[in-house]
Amino acid sequence: MPVGLKKDIAALAPVAGVRLAAGSAGIRAHGGDDLMLMELCEGARTAAVFTRNAFCAAPVVVAREHLAGAMPRLLLVNAGNANAGTGRVGLQDARRCCTAAARATGCRATQVLPFSTGVIGERLPAERIETALPALVEGWREDAWAAAARAIMTTDTVAKGTSRRVQVGGQTVTVTGIAKGAGMICPDMATMLAFVATDAAVARQLLAECLGAAVEESFNRITVDGDTSTNDACVLVATGRSGAAIEDRGEAFQALGRAVTDVCTTLAQSIVRDGEGATRFVPVEVCGGRTRGECLKVAYAIAHSPLVKTALFAGDPNWGRILAAMGRSGVPELDIERVVIHLGGVCIVRGGGRAPEYTEQAGQAVMGRDEIPIRVDLGLGGERAQVWTTDLSYEYVKINAEYRS
Amino acid sequence: MPVGLKKDIAALAPVAGVRLAAGSAGIRAHGGDDLMLMELCEGARTAAVFTRNAFCAAPVVVAREHLAGAMPRLLLVNAGNANAGTGRVGLQDARRCCTAAARATGCRATQVLPFSTGVIGERLPAERIETALPALVEGWREDAWAAAARAIMTTDTVAKGTSRRVQVGGQTVTVTGIAKGAGMICPDMATMLAFVATDAAVARQLLAECLGAAVEESFNRITVDGDTSTNDACVLVATGRSGAAIEDRGEAFQALGRAVTDVCTTLAQSIVRDGEGATRFVPVEVCGGRTRGECLKVAYAIAHSPLVKTALFAGDPNWGRILAAMGRSGVPELDIERVVIHLGGVCIVRGGGRAPEYTEQAGQAVMGRDEIPIRVDLGLGGERAQVWTTDLSYEYVKINAEYRS
Repeated sequence: MPVGLKKDIAALAPVAGVRLAAGSAGIRAHGGDDLMLMELCEGARTAAVFTRNAFCAAPVVVAREHLAGAMPRLLLVNAGNANAGTGRVGLQDARRCCTAAARATGCRATQVLPFSTGVIGERLPAERIETALPALVEGWREDAWAAAARAIMTTDTVAKGTSRRVQVGGQTVTVTGIAKGAGMICPDMATMLAFVATDAAVARQLLAECLGAAVEESFNRITVDGDTSTNDACVLVATGRSGAAIEDRGEAFQALGRAVTDVCTTLAQSIVRDGEGATRFVPVEVCGGRTRGECLKVAYAIAHSPLVKTALFAGDPNWGRILAAMGRSGVPELDIERVVIHLGGVCIVRGGGRAPEYTEQAGQAVMGRDEIPIRVDLGLGGERAQVWTTDLSYEYVKINAEYRS
Repeated sequence: MPVGLKKDIAALAPVAGVRLAAGSAGIRAHGGDDLMLMELCEGARTAAVFTRNAFCAAPVVVAREHLAGAMPRLLLVNAGNANAGTGRVGLQDARRCCTAAARATGCRATQVLPFSTGVIGERLPAERIETALPALVEGWREDAWAAAARAIMTTDTVAKGTSRRVQVGGQTVTVTGIAKGAGMICPDMATMLAFVATDAAVARQLLAECLGAAVEESFNRITVDGDTSTNDACVLVATGRSGAAIEDRGEAFQALGRAVTDVCTTLAQSIVRDGEGATRFVPVEVCGGRTRGECLKVAYAIAHSPLVKTALFAGDPNWGRILAAMGRSGVPELDIERVVIHLGGVCIVRGGGRAPEYTEQAGQAVMGRDEIPIRVDLGLGGERAQVWTTDLSYEYVKINAEYRS
C-alpha cells in the first residue's frame, strides 16, 4: 500500500511536441502494457542522466552512445526485462530494437534511445518488440501520458506522474513527467526510470544543467534499500513548442529549473511512497552541518539503517538507533552533547541523551502517523540536506524473496 | 535458529590466572544471569579494541581511560542495559560500578574495565549491580567460562565460546574466548563483546598487535545488518601462567597469533550463525582484486545488499543481484567480461552474463543448503578477502520491530 499516494494519477498536461503510445509486447509475465514509445518533435533537445553502477545494462550503453551522436526523436521503453547482465548479445538486442523503431517511424536508429526495466539476466525478446511496434506508432497521442506511466511499471503499485505550469518570460510553459520505481534503486526490478518533458526551448548545455540540478535534489535524495540499479535513467526533453526560449542562466532559466525540480521531487517522493513494503514515508532532514556533504552522510546513515527502519515499521520511537546510526556515519567531531533530534515536532534527544521533556506517549503519538519526519541538528555549522526514505517491513522481505517465483 | 551451531557450547578450557563468576543483578527484563566478573591475576597483560562509533557508550569511555592508566585486574560485564546515550550520569554510573567492584575485590577502581550491553538510553541500575557483586566474588572459579558466556547474552539464542591448545616454545598454551552478539554490530542490542584469554606471557605491545591482527581477520569481517554499535569491544588477556613467554615477533608469536585468530574467527562466525533471523550462513570471498581493500569493498557491497540477502533467504540463485551490488561498490575499472561468480561450487556468471553451463537446477541445489558460499573473481589482480554474512528474513524484521515491546 503506497503511503499517501492516490491510486489514479491526476490528469497529466500534454506537452506540445511530444506524442506517446503504450501497448503490449507480451514481455511481462503477468500481462498488461509493457511497451512505451515517446516521439519527440524535430528540434527537440534531450538531456539524460544514467546509473553510476559499473555494470550498466545494454540499453544504457546504447542510449549513452546515441545521445552523444544525434538529436533523439524517439524514446523506446520496455518493462518486464532489464536486458542487463546479457553480455554482447544484449547489446545486439538493444540495437535491433532501435533499428526496428527507426524503421517504423522514419527516423535513424541512432535517434532512438532505448530503456529497459525488469528482470536481470534474461535475454530481451527483441522480436516481440519489433512485432508490437507498428501498432503503437499508429496510435500515439499527445494526451497519452497516463497510459505511458502505466506501461513502464514493474513492481510499482500505482502509476506515477505529475505536471506543472509556470510563467517563463511571459509565456506559459508546461512541464510533465512520469516515473517508475518502487525498490528504489533496486537492481532486480531494474529499476528507476523517469521521463520529463517541457515545451520550453532550452539550449543543450542549459538543459543538462537544469536536469543535473533537479536530479541532485530529487532522485539522488531517495532511498528505499540503498541498492542502485544497472538501468536507472532520467531524461529531460525540451520541445520548444511553447515559444518560450531560454538562452542564458537568467530568471527564465531559474523559473523553469524550479518547475523541473518540483516535478522530479514529486516523482522521486512517489517512488519512495510506493517503496516495496513501505508503510511509512520518512523525510530525514539534517541541519547544523559544516558542509552539505556532512549533512547528507548523516542523513543517509539514518535512512539506510535497517535498525532505524524496522523501528519505524514498528512505530517505536527508538532514538538510540538513530543516534547509533549517526555515530557510524564517519563525520568527524560529532558531539553528542550538541545533537538535537526531533521526531515529527517532538524533541527526543538533547544534551547527550533523551530530552528531559520527552515522554513515550508523545513519541508514540508521532510514530502512529503515516509520515514521520526525522530532523537532526548536528550543532556544528549552518548547512542542511534532506533525503526521503521508508520503513523496512515484512512485506519488503516478502516482495524481494518471492520476486522470481 | 542458529545456522550450524550447537545449543551447548563445547567444554571450554580454563586459563590459569583467570577466574570467572556469573550471577543475576535483575537488570534483564526476562530474568536470568546478567552480570559477569572476570578476575585477572597479578601481572596479567590486557589489550582491547573498541567500537569506532562516534557516540560510544559510557562504559567504553571509562574502559579506555582505565586501560590507558593501569593494569586491569577485573572485567565487569552486564547485559540488559547498554548505558549508552545516557550522558554524564551514564559516566557516573559506570564509574560507580567500577568503584563497587574494586571495593568487593580489593583492587583499585581504575583496575576495573566496565562493559555493558543491552537497551540504549535507559539509566544503568548501578545500585543493583553493587548489591549483586559480593555474591559473585564469593563464587568465582577458573572453570566458569560457559556460565560467563551465558551471562553476557542478549538476543543471542546460544552461548558462544571456544578453546584452542597450541605448542608455543615447547610449552602448551591455552587460548579460550567467549562472545556475545547476534544483531552484528547492532546498536540496540548493543552489542558485540568478546573476551579472550591465554596463559602465555606476552609483552604489551605484542599483545596489542596480536589482538589487532586477529580482530581484523575475524570480528571486522562479519556483517548481519551493516550497523555498528556504541558498545562493541574485544579484549585479549595474557596471564603468563603457562610459563611460555613471547618477547619478539618470532615463531612463538606467530603460533599464538594463529591460535588467537582462530578463536576470534570461530567466535565471529558464531555471531553470524546466530545472526538475528538468520537461516543461512554465507561466506563471501572475493579474489582477483588489485588490492585487498578493493576485494573488501566488493565483498561488503554484496554482503550488505538487502536484495542479495532476501534472495538468499528465498533460496533464489539470483545472480543479477550479486552483479548489481558489485557494480555499485565503487571499485574502478570493473569489467563484467572478466568477472566469474560461483555459488557453492557452481559457476553462475562468466563472460559478461550467465555461465553457459549453468542450469537453474544446479543453482537451486546449492541454494537449498544452510551454508551458501559466494565466490567472486574480479580478474584484475592477485589479492583476496573474505567476509561472512547471513540472509535477510521475515524474522530479522520481527526481532527488530518488536525489540522493545
